[in-house]
Order: sequence, then C-alpha cells, then structure tokens
Amino acid sequence: MKQNIYDNPTFFNEYKKLRESGITYNDFIEQPAVKSAISCLEGKTVLDLGCGTGEFVRYCLENKASYVLGVDISKKMIEQAKIKTENGKADFICAPIEDINITDQKFDVIISSLAIHYIEDYDGLINKVRNLLNYDGVFIFSTEHPIVTARKEMDNWIKDGEGNKLYWALDDYHEEGKREQHWYIEGVIKYHRTISTLVNTLITNGFKIEEIQEPQSTSEGLNKMPKLVNEKRRPSFIVIKAQKSCVT
Amino acid sequence: MKQNIYDNPTFFNEYKKLRESGITYNDFIEQPAVKSAISCLEGKTVLDLGCGTGEFVRYCLENKASYVLGVDISKKMIEQAKIKTENGKADFICAPIEDINITDQKFDVIISSLAIHYIEDYDGLINKVRNLLNYDGVFIFSTEHPIVTARKEMDNWIKDGEGNKLYWALDDYHEEGKREQHWYIEGVIKYHRTISTLVNTLITNGFKIEEIQEPQSTSEGLNKMPKLVNEKRRPSFIVIKAQKSCVT
Repeated sequence: MKQNIYDNPTFFNEYKKLRESGITYNDFIEQPAVKSAISCLEGKTVLDLGCGTGEFVRYCLENKASYVLGVDISKKMIEQAKIKTENGKADFICAPIEDINITDQKFDVIISSLAIHYIEDYDGLINKVRNLLNYDGVFIFSTEHPIVTARKEMDNWIKDGEGNKLYWALDDYHEEGKREQHWYIEGVIKYHRTISTLVNTLITNGFKIEEIQEPQSTSEGLNKMPKLVNEKRRPSFIVIKAQKSCVT
Repeated sequence: MKQNIYDNPTFFNEYKKLRESGITYNDFIEQPAVKSAISCLEGKTVLDLGCGTGEFVRYCLENKASYVLGVDISKKMIEQAKIKTENGKADFICAPIEDINITDQKFDVIISSLAIHYIEDYDGLINKVRNLLNYDGVFIFSTEHPIVTARKEMDNWIKDGEGNKLYWALDDYHEEGKREQHWYIEGVIKYHRTISTLVNTLITNGFKIEEIQEPQSTSEGLNKMPKLVNEKRRPSFIVIKAQKSCVT
C-alpha cells in the first residue's frame, strides 16, 4: 500500500493553506530552481510526476507546452487540479507515480517536484521514466537533500539555550531507507538515499547528468521568510537534471 | 605562493610514518574506491596529479600502464618517489599541480588522489585536465567530502560527556572557500566546495559524469581500524569519475 498522506483531511487542509499562502520553501527555493533547469517548454510534451493541485502543469501550459499530463496519488489533489486547470491541453491521472502504466505516449520533459523522497523503489521509477521519455528527452526532479534526510532522528538543528541554531546534526548517511517524520500529521514516511545513489542510478539507467542544483532562497524569499537564510548553512533540496542518453 | 605542507619537516615525517604504516584512511577507504573506478590500465598513459611518494604511479606500472607521469608540489615527496620507482616507464615533476604546463603530451587517464581540496582554482584545474586528456580519456579524483569540509569550525564529531560520538555537525555549506585545520601542524589550508560545484564544473568543462562514490571502509579496514565504522555515519571522501566528452 503506497503512502497517501495528501488524502488525510488534516494534512490536506494544512498543506492546502500553506501552498495557497505563496510563502513556502517551494515558492522561494525549489520551484525557481526547477524552472531554471528547464530551457524551453514551447511545443513540448510534459509529464509531471506528483503534480499535486497542478500548479506546475499550468506553468507549463502558460509557457506553451503542447500537452501536459499530471499524475498524483491523491484524489483530493487531482480534484483540485482538474478544477483549477482549463480543459484542453492537460490531463490528470490519479495514481501512485511508481505504478503508472503508460504505453501509448512518450514525453519530451518529465518533471517531479518533491515527490521522489516518498518513493521506495527509486531504481524502478528511474527505469520507468527513461522508458517514458523521447530520445534526447530530459528528466528534472527535486527531492529532499541527503544532508536533510540522512539522520534517523529528523529534527536536526541543534540549538543553544536561547534557541539559536548552532549547527545541523548529520548521521546515518549510508543507512538508506525509511525515515519517519511528523509533518502536520504523525508518521510521514520518506526515503533517504545518498548522493551517489541518486546520481549513479540515473547513469546506470542510461541518463547523462546535465546539472545538479542545491538551491538557496531567492531574494524575495529572504524578505518574506527570513529563516530561509539558513539554506546557506545546509541545503534543504537537491535538483537534478538528466538527459536520456543515446547509448544505454 | 602555493601551500606546501608536505615539505614542512614535522609534517613530512609524521605523514611518511603514517602512510608507511599501511593503516590509513587511504589504504582502506580512498584507494580501493579510486582503484575500483579504473577499468583497465593496460597500455594506457597516466598522469597522477599530487602523486606523493609515487605509490599510485607504481600501482599503474604494475597494472601495465605504458607510461606514468607523477606531479607533486613537494620536493621531499618527489625525491622519495624517484628512489622508490624503477626507471623507465615513469617520470616525476616537482610542481604545484595547478601550474603544470605540458604541451607535448596527452593522457588516457588522469587521476588525483586527495589533492584537489588543496587547490583554490578548481575550475582552472578542471580546464587544464580536460586539455591534457586524450579523446575519451577519463579523469578520476578523490577529495574530502563536502559534508566534511563545510563547517568552518572543523572538528565536527559532537560527543557526549563520555566521548561517544552523538552526531556530525554540519554548517556553512554554501560558503565555499578556505578552511583552516590542524593536521600534524597548524594552519593546513583546504578549500570547501559544494557537491553541485564539484559536479557542474566538470560538466561545463566538457566532461560526462560516469560515477560518484562515497566510499566506506573495506572489511580489512574495519578489522584493523575499528573507528572506520563511522564512515557509515558520514562519508569522509567523495570519488568522481568523469569522461572527456566529444561535445563541449
């Protein structure tokens, strides 16, 4: 059974409120990085794995993608996505991203925004992504940084008596696998993987690494969320861009 | 003036003793990883940047490299290398690796073992390496892991009252540049760079990433140096293998 925190009513409401505020790590760190990694969407077909309420799907359409397919495990998210997105050039499928079974379509661009740390079988997913890409297609994904997911005890800022952040505690780096965290609700499961696993799995599946980003906050973000200055001290996310290579 | 700690008599004697003991991080973590990254040396020409006393140069010759050139900033190291290495298929140059100026030779393999964290101008070095490689040549290097070099205050195992290691303190990740450390002598300078800088600089200089390793100890190492079990908790080194790509 795939984890589906987004259909938990408590989680969904809190998460929806957060994303609609426009004051999030996504808005100021992760999305600008993912968008900067995409060269041009005009005329491209796009698959968005873990599309949520379809924000990025609409971004692709505004930037002249010819067609976008969004996939998400959460019914509530997909409902929202359908309501918010004009019919025509986008479709949505409600399914766990690792279970998608598309045999009649390939894409120029596949993106996945902060979804892959929920997936247990990374190698299996990367293999699927490769098969769903056109020749020379690109895969761009963001995920929680291994520096952040490594330590099993996940609250990692070590503070002094006055609450000042002294440093970030890292541990268990090579013990890949499940991490459990409280995030609005108890028991949110994420999967830790090392940098070398993230990169080498792409390469062994026939991808060429194009770029790695460990994004910091935009200047707007630093104004609106001053705590984002801490991204300088340890990166929250990693964004990897890889191209399906001709030789496998 | 390039830093040359290895010609400091105190440092040189301590370091020589350490390496000759055969009980080091190099023997059980770093060298096995670097060697595993090299597919075949037979008939290959090799350049070793930061060759020290020539241990790896001799390894290449034993594995049938056709010619090996070793470069090191330290006169004392190069003296030892010349004494220990049979004449014929190897040469040694005493120079800072970032200053080498070879115009009449190209190599099939360039390796650099734990030297690059001493180099200020990483981009300049990578550009030189590219120019010194034959078409399809490979560059393999090990360097201290960004997780290790990030925090300016460099003694990073946080311990409880009984000396047990609680976790590894990380900080200052995005502040690249100088780090100062005591290692046998005061004021050893290293340069911290992020994962994204290490990787992207290779790509923008026309390399294709082939493999990233964050090596743990061999089982022999775990027997002879039990503390190497801590490599599981945070990696000391990163090893990157990259191929000069046909398109720049």
